[in-house]
Amino acid sequence: MKYSNQTRMLVAVDCIIFGFDGEDYKILLIQRGFAPEKEKWSLMGGFVQMDETLDKAAQRILKQLTGLHDVYLDQMSVFSQPTRDPIERVIAVPYVSLIDIEKYNKQINNDFHAKWFSIREIPKLIFDHGDMVALALQHLRYKAALHPILFELLPEKFTLPQLQTMYEGLYDTKLDKRNFTRKLLSSNLLEKTEEKDKSSSKKGAFYYSLNEDFYEKNITNILTIISKSDTSLFSD
Amino acid sequence: MKYSNQTRMLVAVDCIIFGFDGEDYKILLIQRGFAPEKEKWSLMGGFVQMDETLDKAAQRILKQLTGLHDVYLDQMSVFSQPTRDPIERVIAVPYVSLIDIEKYNKQINNDFHAKWFSIREIPKLIFDHGDMVALALQHLRYKAALHPILFELLPEKFTLPQLQTMYEGLYDTKLDKRNFTRKLLSSNLLEKTEEKDKSSSKKGAFYYSLNEDFYEKNITNILTIISKSDTSLFSD
Repeated sequence: MKYSNQTRMLVAVDCIIFGFDGEDYKILLIQRGFAPEKEKWSLMGGFVQMDETLDKAAQRILKQLTGLHDVYLDQMSVFSQPTRDPIERVIAVPYVSLIDIEKYNKQINNDFHAKWFSIREIPKLIFDHGDMVALALQHLRYKAALHPILFELLPEKFTLPQLQTMYEGLYDTKLDKRNFTRKLLSSNLLEKTEEKDKSSSKKGAFYYSLNEDFYEKNITNILTIISKSDTSLFSD
Repeated sequence: MKYSNQTRMLVAVDCIIFGFDGEDYKILLIQRGFAPEKEKWSLMGGFVQMDETLDKAAQRILKQLTGLHDVYLDQMSVFSQPTRDPIERVIAVPYVSLIDIEKYNKQINNDFHAKWFSIREIPKLIFDHGDMVALALQHLRYKAALHPILFELLPEKFTLPQLQTMYEGLYDTKLDKRNFTRKLLSSNLLEKTEEKDKSSSKKGAFYYSLNEDFYEKNITNILTIISKSDTSLFSD
Protein backbone atom coordinates (compact mmCIF):
# COMPACT_ATOMS: atom_id res chain seq x y z
CA MET A 1 0.00 0.00 0.00
CA LYS A 2 1.48 3.30 -1.09
CA TYR A 3 0.72 6.64 0.49
CA SER A 4 0.60 8.33 -2.91
CA ASN A 5 -2.48 6.42 -4.12
CA GLN A 6 -4.54 7.38 -1.11
CA THR A 7 -7.34 9.88 -0.68
CA ARG A 8 -6.70 13.07 1.25
CA MET A 9 -9.65 14.86 2.78
CA LEU A 10 -10.56 18.00 4.70
CA VAL A 11 -10.76 17.66 8.47
CA ALA A 12 -13.02 20.06 10.36
CA VAL A 13 -13.69 20.61 14.05
CA ASP A 14 -17.04 21.83 15.37
CA CYS A 15 -17.51 23.29 18.84
CA ILE A 16 -20.70 22.66 20.78
CA ILE A 17 -20.83 25.05 23.72
CA PHE A 18 -23.57 24.50 26.28
CA GLY A 19 -24.04 27.01 29.06
CA PHE A 20 -25.99 27.17 32.30
CA ASP A 21 -27.20 30.52 33.57
CA GLY A 22 -28.49 29.37 36.97
CA GLU A 23 -31.91 28.42 35.64
CA ASP A 24 -31.71 27.22 32.06
CA TYR A 25 -29.38 25.30 29.74
CA LYS A 26 -28.43 27.12 26.56
CA ILE A 27 -26.34 26.52 23.45
CA LEU A 28 -24.09 29.04 21.73
CA LEU A 29 -24.55 29.34 17.95
CA ILE A 30 -23.25 31.59 15.19
CA GLN A 31 -24.39 32.47 11.70
CA ARG A 32 -22.09 30.77 9.24
CA GLY A 33 -19.78 33.25 7.50
CA PHE A 34 -19.20 31.52 4.18
CA ALA A 35 -20.91 29.46 1.46
CA PRO A 36 -22.56 27.01 1.31
CA GLU A 37 -25.36 27.73 3.81
CA LYS A 38 -24.01 31.23 4.47
CA GLU A 39 -25.78 33.05 7.33
CA LYS A 40 -27.60 29.92 8.51
CA TRP A 41 -27.27 29.01 12.21
CA SER A 42 -24.30 26.79 12.82
CA LEU A 43 -21.92 25.42 15.41
CA MET A 44 -18.53 27.13 15.57
CA GLY A 45 -16.51 25.17 13.04
CA GLY A 46 -13.51 25.37 10.76
CA PHE A 47 -10.77 23.39 9.08
CA VAL A 48 -7.73 21.88 10.77
CA GLN A 49 -4.48 23.42 9.51
CA MET A 50 -1.36 21.50 8.52
CA ASP A 51 0.63 22.39 11.64
CA GLU A 52 -1.93 22.03 14.44
CA THR A 53 -3.47 19.19 16.41
CA LEU A 54 -7.24 18.81 16.49
CA ASP A 55 -7.37 20.10 20.07
CA LYS A 56 -5.45 23.22 19.10
CA ALA A 57 -7.67 23.75 16.07
CA ALA A 58 -10.80 23.56 18.24
CA GLN A 59 -9.41 26.15 20.70
CA ARG A 60 -8.30 28.45 17.85
CA ILE A 61 -11.60 28.29 16.01
CA LEU A 62 -13.68 28.79 19.14
CA LYS A 63 -11.62 31.86 20.02
CA GLN A 64 -11.72 33.28 16.49
CA LEU A 65 -15.46 32.95 16.16
CA THR A 66 -16.65 33.84 19.66
CA GLY A 67 -13.77 35.21 21.74
CA LEU A 68 -14.09 32.29 24.20
CA HIS A 69 -10.77 30.88 25.33
CA ASP A 70 -9.38 28.42 27.87
CA VAL A 71 -12.60 26.44 27.78
CA TYR A 72 -12.31 22.74 28.57
CA LEU A 73 -13.37 20.84 25.44
CA ASP A 74 -14.25 17.15 25.28
CA GLN A 75 -13.71 15.38 21.97
CA MET A 76 -16.63 13.27 20.72
CA SER A 77 -16.83 10.60 18.00
CA VAL A 78 -15.98 11.67 14.47
CA PHE A 79 -18.77 12.41 11.96
CA SER A 80 -17.67 10.81 8.71
CA GLN A 81 -20.63 10.20 6.40
CA PRO A 82 -19.06 10.64 2.94
CA THR A 83 -21.81 13.01 1.75
CA ARG A 84 -22.26 15.08 4.91
CA ASP A 85 -20.82 18.21 3.27
CA PRO A 86 -22.23 19.07 -0.18
CA ILE A 87 -18.97 20.57 -1.52
CA GLU A 88 -16.51 17.76 -0.92
CA ARG A 89 -15.49 15.07 1.57
CA VAL A 90 -15.05 16.62 5.02
CA ILE A 91 -14.81 14.60 8.21
CA ALA A 92 -15.82 16.56 11.30
CA VAL A 93 -14.64 16.10 14.88
CA PRO A 94 -17.12 17.59 17.37
CA TYR A 95 -15.94 19.09 20.66
CA VAL A 96 -18.34 19.74 23.52
CA SER A 97 -18.22 21.91 26.62
CA LEU A 98 -20.52 23.06 29.40
CA ILE A 99 -19.73 26.47 30.87
CA ASP A 100 -21.04 28.93 33.42
CA ILE A 101 -22.61 31.59 31.19
CA GLU A 102 -22.13 34.42 33.66
CA LYS A 103 -18.45 33.64 34.12
CA TYR A 104 -17.63 33.50 30.41
CA ASN A 105 -20.04 36.06 28.96
CA LYS A 106 -17.57 38.92 29.14
CA GLN A 107 -15.21 37.01 26.82
CA ILE A 108 -17.78 36.72 24.06
CA ASN A 109 -17.28 39.23 21.26
CA ASN A 110 -19.95 40.15 18.77
CA ASP A 111 -18.04 39.98 15.50
CA PHE A 112 -19.84 36.81 14.49
CA HIS A 113 -23.04 37.52 16.42
CA ALA A 114 -22.67 34.46 18.64
CA LYS A 115 -26.01 33.97 20.37
CA TRP A 116 -27.31 31.81 23.22
CA PHE A 117 -30.44 29.73 22.53
CA SER A 118 -32.37 27.70 25.10
CA ILE A 119 -31.77 23.99 24.43
CA ARG A 120 -35.54 23.69 24.16
CA GLU A 121 -35.62 26.18 21.26
CA ILE A 122 -32.68 25.33 19.03
CA PRO A 123 -33.08 26.69 15.48
CA LYS A 124 -32.55 24.51 12.41
CA LEU A 125 -28.80 24.01 11.94
CA ILE A 126 -26.69 23.40 8.82
CA PHE A 127 -25.54 19.97 7.62
CA ASP A 128 -25.56 17.35 10.41
CA HIS A 129 -25.00 19.86 13.21
CA GLY A 130 -28.40 19.02 14.70
CA ASP A 131 -27.28 15.40 15.14
CA MET A 132 -24.03 16.59 16.71
CA VAL A 133 -25.96 18.64 19.24
CA ALA A 134 -28.22 15.72 20.12
CA LEU A 135 -25.20 13.46 20.69
CA ALA A 136 -23.37 16.15 22.63
CA LEU A 137 -26.32 16.45 24.99
CA GLN A 138 -26.30 12.67 25.49
CA HIS A 139 -22.55 12.82 26.12
CA LEU A 140 -23.05 15.50 28.77
CA ARG A 141 -25.88 13.64 30.48
CA TYR A 142 -23.77 10.50 30.61
CA LYS A 143 -20.77 12.36 31.96
CA ALA A 144 -22.80 14.26 34.54
CA ALA A 145 -24.24 10.97 35.76
CA LEU A 146 -20.79 9.58 36.50
CA HIS A 147 -18.78 12.65 37.48
CA PRO A 148 -19.91 15.63 39.52
CA ILE A 149 -19.20 18.03 36.63
CA LEU A 150 -22.33 20.07 37.26
CA PHE A 151 -20.91 21.22 40.59
CA GLU A 152 -18.34 23.26 38.67
CA LEU A 153 -21.15 25.50 37.44
CA LEU A 154 -22.39 26.37 40.91
CA PRO A 155 -21.46 29.49 42.86
CA GLU A 156 -19.29 28.97 45.93
CA LYS A 157 -22.38 28.63 48.09
CA PHE A 158 -25.60 27.15 46.80
CA THR A 159 -28.85 25.69 48.04
CA LEU A 160 -30.17 22.19 47.43
CA PRO A 161 -33.10 23.49 45.34
CA GLN A 162 -30.56 25.26 43.09
CA LEU A 163 -28.68 22.00 42.59
CA GLN A 164 -31.91 20.14 41.90
CA THR A 165 -32.82 22.70 39.22
CA MET A 166 -29.51 21.99 37.50
CA TYR A 167 -30.06 18.25 37.35
CA GLU A 168 -33.70 18.60 36.32
CA GLY A 169 -32.75 20.98 33.50
CA LEU A 170 -30.05 18.77 32.03
CA TYR A 171 -32.15 15.60 32.12
CA ASP A 172 -35.37 17.44 31.25
CA THR A 173 -37.20 15.71 34.08
CA LYS A 174 -38.62 16.23 37.58
CA LEU A 175 -36.80 14.63 40.49
CA ASP A 176 -38.30 13.62 43.80
CA LYS A 177 -37.08 16.28 46.24
CA ARG A 178 -36.78 14.05 49.29
CA ASN A 179 -34.96 11.31 47.43
CA PHE A 180 -32.61 13.73 45.71
CA THR A 181 -31.76 15.45 49.00
CA ARG A 182 -31.17 12.17 50.80
CA LYS A 183 -28.78 10.87 48.11
CA LEU A 184 -26.93 14.16 47.94
CA LEU A 185 -26.42 14.43 51.66
CA SER A 186 -25.18 10.86 51.92
CA SER A 187 -22.70 11.44 49.08
CA ASN A 188 -20.12 13.32 51.19
CA LEU A 189 -19.80 15.79 48.33
CA LEU A 190 -21.47 18.63 50.22
CA GLU A 191 -20.73 20.64 53.33
CA LYS A 192 -23.54 22.51 55.08
CA THR A 193 -22.83 26.14 56.00
CA GLU A 194 -24.49 28.16 58.75
CA GLU A 195 -26.05 30.64 56.31
CA LYS A 196 -29.49 30.58 54.78
CA ASP A 197 -30.92 31.87 51.51
CA LYS A 198 -34.23 33.55 52.41
CA SER A 199 -35.02 34.95 48.95
CA SER A 200 -37.37 32.12 47.91
CA SER A 201 -39.15 31.29 51.16
CA LYS A 202 -39.61 32.65 54.66
CA LYS A 203 -38.16 29.52 56.21
CA GLY A 204 -35.17 29.74 53.90
CA ALA A 205 -32.79 27.12 52.53
CA PHE A 206 -29.35 26.42 53.93
CA TYR A 207 -26.39 27.19 51.76
CA TYR A 208 -24.00 24.33 51.04
CA SER A 209 -20.51 24.30 49.64
CA LEU A 210 -18.57 21.64 47.79
CA ASN A 211 -16.27 19.37 49.78
CA GLU A 212 -13.24 20.14 47.61
CA ASP A 213 -11.09 17.37 49.07
CA PHE A 214 -13.64 14.70 48.46
CA TYR A 215 -14.42 16.08 45.01
CA GLU A 216 -10.76 16.11 43.94
CA LYS A 217 -10.20 12.57 45.13
CA ASN A 218 -13.27 11.37 43.31
CA ILE A 219 -12.36 13.04 40.06
CA THR A 220 -8.75 11.96 39.97
CA ASN A 221 -9.22 8.47 41.33
CA ILE A 222 -12.23 7.24 39.46
CA LEU A 223 -10.16 5.96 36.56
CA THR A 224 -7.38 4.29 38.46
CA ILE A 225 -8.58 3.00 41.79
CA ILE A 226 -9.93 -0.47 41.64
CA SER A 227 -11.86 -0.16 44.88
CA LYS A 228 -13.74 2.77 43.40
CA SER A 229 -14.30 0.81 40.21
CA ASP A 230 -15.73 -2.03 42.21
CA THR A 231 -18.18 0.31 43.85
CA SER A 232 -19.41 1.81 40.59
CA LEU A 233 -19.80 -1.54 38.94
CA PHE A 234 -21.62 -3.22 41.72
CA SER A 235 -23.62 -0.41 43.28
CA ASP A 236 -27.30 -1.25 43.34
CA MET B 1 -13.07 31.06 4.16
CA LYS B 2 -12.86 29.04 0.96
CA TYR B 3 -12.66 25.27 0.81
CA SER B 4 -10.10 25.45 -2.00
CA ASN B 5 -7.38 27.07 0.16
CA GLN B 6 -7.57 24.41 2.82
CA THR B 7 -5.27 21.53 3.64
CA ARG B 8 -6.35 18.00 2.86
CA MET B 9 -4.77 15.16 4.80
CA LEU B 10 -4.70 11.39 5.03
CA VAL B 11 -7.00 9.81 7.59
CA ALA B 12 -6.07 6.42 9.00
CA VAL B 13 -7.79 4.04 11.40
CA ASP B 14 -5.87 1.73 13.73
CA CYS B 15 -7.43 -1.30 15.42
CA ILE B 16 -6.38 -2.30 18.93
CA ILE B 17 -7.68 -5.78 19.64
CA PHE B 18 -7.34 -7.06 23.19
CA GLY B 19 -8.26 -10.64 23.96
CA PHE B 20 -8.80 -12.72 27.07
CA ASP B 21 -8.04 -16.44 26.99
CA GLY B 22 -9.45 -17.34 30.41
CA GLU B 23 -6.23 -16.51 32.24
CA ASP B 24 -4.35 -13.71 30.54
CA TYR B 25 -5.02 -10.53 28.58
CA LYS B 26 -3.37 -10.35 25.18
CA ILE B 27 -3.08 -7.95 22.27
CA LEU B 28 -3.19 -8.83 18.57
CA LEU B 29 -0.41 -7.35 16.44
CA ILE B 30 0.80 -7.69 12.87
CA GLN B 31 4.03 -6.98 11.04
CA ARG B 32 3.53 -3.89 8.93
CA GLY B 33 3.36 -4.77 5.22
CA PHE B 34 4.70 -1.56 3.66
CA ALA B 35 7.29 1.21 4.12
CA PRO B 36 8.14 3.06 6.26
CA GLU B 37 8.80 0.69 9.19
CA LYS B 38 8.05 -2.35 7.03
CA GLU B 39 7.95 -5.63 9.02
CA LYS B 40 7.95 -3.86 12.39
CA TRP B 41 5.20 -4.79 14.85
CA SER B 42 2.14 -2.65 14.40
CA LEU B 43 -1.53 -2.27 15.12
CA MET B 44 -3.85 -3.18 12.26
CA GLY B 45 -4.14 0.09 10.37
CA GLY B 46 -4.93 1.61 6.99
CA PHE B 47 -6.29 4.64 5.19
CA VAL B 48 -9.93 5.68 5.03
CA GLN B 49 -11.26 5.58 1.45
CA MET B 50 -13.35 8.29 -0.18
CA ASP B 51 -16.65 6.40 0.00
CA GLU B 52 -16.57 4.89 3.48
CA THR B 53 -17.21 6.07 7.04
CA LEU B 54 -14.49 5.63 9.66
CA ASP B 55 -16.41 2.77 11.29
CA LYS B 56 -16.64 0.94 7.95
CA ALA B 57 -12.95 1.53 7.28
CA ALA B 58 -12.03 0.05 10.67
CA GLN B 59 -14.11 -3.08 10.02
CA ARG B 60 -12.72 -3.47 6.50
CA ILE B 61 -9.09 -3.07 7.55
CA LEU B 62 -9.42 -5.41 10.53
CA LYS B 63 -10.93 -8.06 8.27
CA GLN B 64 -8.34 -7.59 5.50
CA LEU B 65 -5.40 -7.85 7.86
CA THR B 66 -6.54 -10.54 10.29
CA GLY B 67 -9.76 -12.16 9.08
CA LEU B 68 -11.63 -10.93 12.15
CA HIS B 69 -15.12 -9.67 11.41
CA ASP B 70 -18.22 -8.51 13.26
CA VAL B 71 -16.15 -7.40 16.20
CA TYR B 72 -17.57 -4.56 18.28
CA LEU B 73 -15.17 -1.62 17.97
CA ASP B 74 -15.12 1.47 20.22
CA GLN B 75 -13.78 4.67 18.71
CA MET B 76 -11.23 6.54 20.84
CA SER B 77 -9.86 10.08 20.61
CA VAL B 78 -8.05 11.05 17.41
CA PHE B 79 -4.23 11.10 17.32
CA SER B 80 -3.28 14.25 15.43
CA GLN B 81 0.28 15.31 16.21
CA PRO B 82 1.38 16.90 12.90
CA THR B 83 4.65 14.93 12.76
CA ARG B 84 3.38 11.56 13.97
CA ASP B 85 3.93 9.93 10.55
CA PRO B 86 7.35 10.61 8.94
CA ILE B 87 6.04 10.57 5.35
CA GLU B 88 3.27 13.15 5.51
CA ARG B 89 0.44 14.44 7.69
CA VAL B 90 -1.82 11.55 8.72
CA ILE B 91 -4.40 11.78 11.47
CA ALA B 92 -5.23 8.42 13.04
CA VAL B 93 -8.45 7.31 14.66
CA PRO B 94 -7.89 4.37 17.04
CA TYR B 95 -10.56 1.71 17.55
CA VAL B 96 -10.46 -0.69 20.48
CA SER B 97 -12.09 -4.02 21.24
CA LEU B 98 -11.89 -6.77 23.83
CA ILE B 99 -12.74 -10.26 22.58
CA ASP B 100 -12.89 -13.84 23.77
CA ILE B 101 -9.79 -15.33 22.14
CA GLU B 102 -11.15 -18.85 21.97
CA LYS B 103 -14.34 -17.72 20.27
CA TYR B 104 -12.65 -15.64 17.58
CA ASN B 105 -9.42 -17.58 16.99
CA LYS B 106 -10.86 -19.64 14.16
CA GLN B 107 -11.54 -16.44 12.18
CA ILE B 108 -7.91 -15.33 12.28
CA ASN B 109 -6.03 -16.03 9.06
CA ASN B 110 -2.29 -16.13 8.81
CA ASP B 111 -1.69 -14.02 5.71
CA PHE B 112 -0.30 -11.19 7.76
CA HIS B 113 1.03 -13.33 10.63
CA ALA B 114 -1.25 -11.71 13.19
CA LYS B 115 0.05 -12.76 16.59
CA TRP B 116 -1.18 -12.54 20.19
CA PHE B 117 1.20 -11.00 22.77
CA SER B 118 0.63 -10.86 26.52
CA ILE B 119 -0.12 -7.27 27.53
CA ARG B 120 2.83 -7.59 29.91
CA GLU B 121 5.18 -8.32 26.99
CA ILE B 122 4.24 -5.98 24.19
CA PRO B 123 7.04 -5.49 21.62
CA LYS B 124 8.15 -2.05 20.49
CA LEU B 125 5.54 -0.69 18.07
CA ILE B 126 5.82 1.73 15.13
CA PHE B 127 5.05 5.46 15.34
CA ASP B 128 2.80 6.36 18.31
CA HIS B 129 1.10 2.94 18.42
CA GLY B 130 2.54 2.31 21.89
CA ASP B 131 0.71 5.40 23.20
CA MET B 132 -2.48 4.24 21.50
CA VAL B 133 -2.25 0.89 23.27
CA ALA B 134 -1.68 2.55 26.65
CA LEU B 135 -4.72 4.78 26.16
CA ALA B 136 -6.80 1.87 24.89
CA LEU B 137 -6.03 -0.08 28.04
CA GLN B 138 -7.11 2.91 30.15
CA HIS B 139 -10.28 3.17 28.07
CA LEU B 140 -11.04 -0.48 28.70
CA ARG B 141 -10.38 -0.25 32.43
CA TYR B 142 -12.64 2.75 32.68
CA LYS B 143 -15.40 1.07 30.69
CA ALA B 144 -15.14 -2.18 32.63
CA ALA B 145 -15.45 -0.23 35.88
CA LEU B 146 -18.79 1.23 34.80
CA HIS B 147 -20.30 -1.49 32.65
CA PRO B 148 -20.18 -5.24 33.15
CA ILE B 149 -18.40 -5.76 29.81
CA LEU B 150 -16.07 -8.40 31.18
CA PHE B 151 -19.01 -10.72 31.74
CA GLU B 152 -19.32 -11.07 27.98
CA LEU B 153 -15.99 -12.90 27.92
CA LEU B 154 -17.08 -15.56 30.39
CA PRO B 155 -18.39 -18.98 29.48
CA GLU B 156 -22.06 -19.65 30.20
CA LYS B 157 -21.18 -20.98 33.64
CA PHE B 158 -18.23 -19.67 35.60
CA THR B 159 -16.85 -19.63 39.14
CA LEU B 160 -16.17 -16.61 41.32
CA PRO B 161 -12.39 -17.23 41.27
CA GLN B 162 -12.53 -17.18 37.45
CA LEU B 163 -14.27 -13.82 37.52
CA GLN B 164 -11.78 -12.49 40.05
CA THR B 165 -8.90 -13.53 37.77
CA MET B 166 -10.45 -11.48 34.96
CA TYR B 167 -10.67 -8.31 37.03
CA GLU B 168 -7.23 -8.78 38.54
CA GLY B 169 -5.68 -9.28 35.10
CA LEU B 170 -7.23 -6.18 33.55
CA TYR B 171 -6.31 -3.91 36.47
CA ASP B 172 -2.99 -5.66 37.12
CA THR B 173 -3.77 -5.89 40.81
CA LYS B 174 -4.81 -8.30 43.58
CA LEU B 175 -8.33 -8.01 44.95
CA ASP B 176 -9.47 -9.01 48.40
CA LYS B 177 -11.40 -12.24 47.83
CA ARG B 178 -14.00 -11.76 50.55
CA ASN B 179 -14.73 -8.17 49.58
CA PHE B 180 -14.94 -8.98 45.88
CA THR B 181 -17.30 -11.89 46.51
CA ARG B 182 -19.54 -9.85 48.79
CA LYS B 183 -19.88 -7.01 46.28
CA LEU B 184 -20.50 -9.39 43.43
CA LEU B 185 -23.19 -11.34 45.21
CA SER B 186 -24.99 -8.18 46.31
CA SER B 187 -24.96 -6.84 42.74
CA ASN B 188 -27.84 -8.99 41.48
CA LEU B 189 -25.81 -9.66 38.36
CA LEU B 190 -25.17 -13.31 39.18
CA GLU B 191 -27.29 -16.40 39.61
CA LYS B 192 -25.94 -19.36 41.53
CA THR B 193 -26.32 -22.78 39.91
CA GLU B 194 -26.41 -26.16 41.67
CA GLU B 195 -23.22 -27.37 39.99
CA LYS B 196 -19.67 -27.22 41.27
CA ASP B 197 -16.29 -27.01 39.60
CA LYS B 198 -14.04 -29.48 41.43
CA SER B 199 -10.99 -29.15 39.18
CA SER B 200 -9.12 -26.67 41.39
CA SER B 201 -9.99 -27.86 44.90
CA LYS B 202 -11.62 -30.79 46.66
CA LYS B 203 -14.32 -28.60 48.16
CA GLY B 204 -15.02 -27.11 44.74
CA ALA B 205 -16.45 -23.77 43.65
CA PHE B 206 -20.06 -23.21 42.68
CA TYR B 207 -20.77 -22.28 39.10
CA TYR B 208 -22.66 -19.05 38.53
CA SER B 209 -24.42 -17.68 35.48
CA LEU B 210 -25.20 -14.16 34.42
CA ASN B 211 -28.64 -12.77 35.26
CA GLU B 212 -29.41 -11.81 31.65
CA ASP B 213 -32.48 -9.74 32.49
CA PHE B 214 -30.71 -7.63 35.05
CA TYR B 215 -27.68 -7.29 32.79
CA GLU B 216 -29.74 -6.13 29.81
CA LYS B 217 -31.59 -3.54 31.87
CA ASN B 218 -28.36 -2.20 33.32
CA ILE B 219 -26.67 -1.90 29.97
CA THR B 220 -29.51 -0.25 28.14
CA ASN B 221 -30.69 2.02 30.92
CA ILE B 222 -27.48 3.40 32.28
CA LEU B 223 -27.40 6.25 29.80
CA THR B 224 -31.00 7.32 29.95
CA ILE B 225 -32.54 6.63 33.32
CA ILE B 226 -32.10 9.42 35.76
CA SER B 227 -32.67 7.22 38.79
CA LYS B 228 -29.79 5.03 37.71
CA SER B 229 -27.70 8.13 37.08
CA ASP B 230 -28.44 9.34 40.56
CA THR B 231 -27.23 6.08 41.97
CA SER B 232 -23.96 6.14 40.09
CA LEU B 233 -23.22 9.71 40.98
CA PHE B 234 -24.00 9.46 44.61
CA SER B 235 -22.97 5.93 45.48
CA ASP B 236 -20.52 5.91 48.30
